[in-house]
Amino acid sequence: MTKTGAIGVFDSGIGGLTVLRALLKTLPDESFVYFGDTARVPYGNKSAETVLRFSRENVQFLMDEGVKFVVVACNTASAEAVPTLQREFPVPIVGVIEPGVRAAVKMSKAHHIGVIGTAGTIRSGAYQRGIEDLDPQARVIALACPLFVPLVEEGWIDTPITETIASTYLQDYRKEGIDVLVLGCTHYPLLHDVIGRVLGPRVALVDSAVETANVVRERLEADGLLSDGGEPHLSIYLSDIAPNFREVGERILGRPIPDVRLLTV
Amino acid sequence: MTKTGAIGVFDSGIGGLTVLRALLKTLPDESFVYFGDTARVPYGNKSAETVLRFSRENVQFLMDEGVKFVVVACNTASAEAVPTLQREFPVPIVGVIEPGVRAAVKMSKAHHIGVIGTAGTIRSGAYQRGIEDLDPQARVIALACPLFVPLVEEGWIDTPITETIASTYLQDYRKEGIDVLVLGCTHYPLLHDVIGRVLGPRVALVDSAVETANVVRERLEADGLLSDGGEPHLSIYLSDIAPNFREVGERILGRPIPDVRLLTV
Repeated sequence: MTKTGAIGVFDSGIGGLTVLRALLKTLPDESFVYFGDTARVPYGNKSAETVLRFSRENVQFLMDEGVKFVVVACNTASAEAVPTLQREFPVPIVGVIEPGVRAAVKMSKAHHIGVIGTAGTIRSGAYQRGIEDLDPQARVIALACPLFVPLVEEGWIDTPITETIASTYLQDYRKEGIDVLVLGCTHYPLLHDVIGRVLGPRVALVDSAVETANVVRERLEADGLLSDGGEPHLSIYLSDIAPNFREVGERILGRPIPDVRLLTV
Repeated sequence: MTKTGAIGVFDSGIGGLTVLRALLKTLPDESFVYFGDTARVPYGNKSAETVLRFSRENVQFLMDEGVKFVVVACNTASAEAVPTLQREFPVPIVGVIEPGVRAAVKMSKAHHIGVIGTAGTIRSGAYQRGIEDLDPQARVIALACPLFVPLVEEGWIDTPITETIASTYLQDYRKEGIDVLVLGCTHYPLLHDVIGRVLGPRVALVDSAVETANVVRERLEADGLLSDGGEPHLSIYLSDIAPNFREVGERILGRPIPDVRLLTV
């Protein structure tokens, strides 16, 4: 069984292009509609109510575009809105939390797992609950790292200052003996090398983007929603088109970006 | 001549409370309505079109509240929207750029002035043009410092990391021989001590908040708009009420914050 219609993906901004990149690689025959809410980015320091309200609007836009499946590529929206969105909308909706949780539990031998993310993601407790539900033995330590997103957006990816900030945030993890760290924000995989150096080789880093793409493929197969074979296309909508968008976006997506349309929110 | 009605103040978030603080001190008999667009903060990394659209909505809300005067407490909105807003709305509108420009030109003996701000403020060229219009001899060097706002919001006000980041951004200013630096973003005065240490005692720092309050008082006097003597009141509206708002807001405002109302945007 197959299905026409694109897969809808939304994020608070363009960080979710890391998830789109993994989806394009894992599902090359699918079409995608990506919406980045760049006029209201970031979500990570806003209240749960506001994040849910914005997320509802974003899914409704994707539904109006006729998508067959929705991927919430934003960790904060996944943490604070996905269960509600799944009840309210008639298409399958997958966030990035559950795939990250599954991968972390599978990889951890010490049953001792760290999670880093935005203030909203960590405050929601979604990763912590998910890991403890799946592995009742697990101990989880979770930490918000609000400066990581602006560092990435400033392009200070691998500088001494970035390493000092990472060391400051992560110093407790070095003592705690975790063996897995979940990078619970779409921007954080870009800091993979710095975080890896700070924590050393015995801590494995989980990048939710890749895990999420695998889960989406499984769900499409299980639900009979794989593409029926039309020519795949990619549409990108943003609520604000900043002057440096293309440069930053193409660096994250790893390929040229097609025409971008403005969606006023 | 006097006038009933409050003074409306808007900012992209709560950084503009530094301007409100200066206004409350300078104009203790006036009433104020403050709107912080915390659901869509920040403005500084968004396009000029989006900043103008949000700013129009904010002024319209304040007009609907019956204000007699509008203060744009956000540097980015002042830089990108004030001239248009002044044409479109029937009340006096003052931004923070012009007061900062006046103070900088008055203070600089070297005619060599630095300006720091968000990407949007610096890209607009508003400070640079303003200074060069007022002092054709002046040389201006302008620089965006996107990490300063997240540092302040993280509470890393006076840490070694903050000083290292400030030194990195400002290293060229130390060679250039400026004698005045405009702190062209509402959050930056909180970094006054660190920036002062990095640049040394020969560089004077201009805090637009205080200058703006003085300009507002002059305009109210000149236009016959000073309060007619009713009991002054303060109303605060936000488009998102984050869990830690009161703590951060009271630190910035320097006094207890009254009931805050949610305005959905």
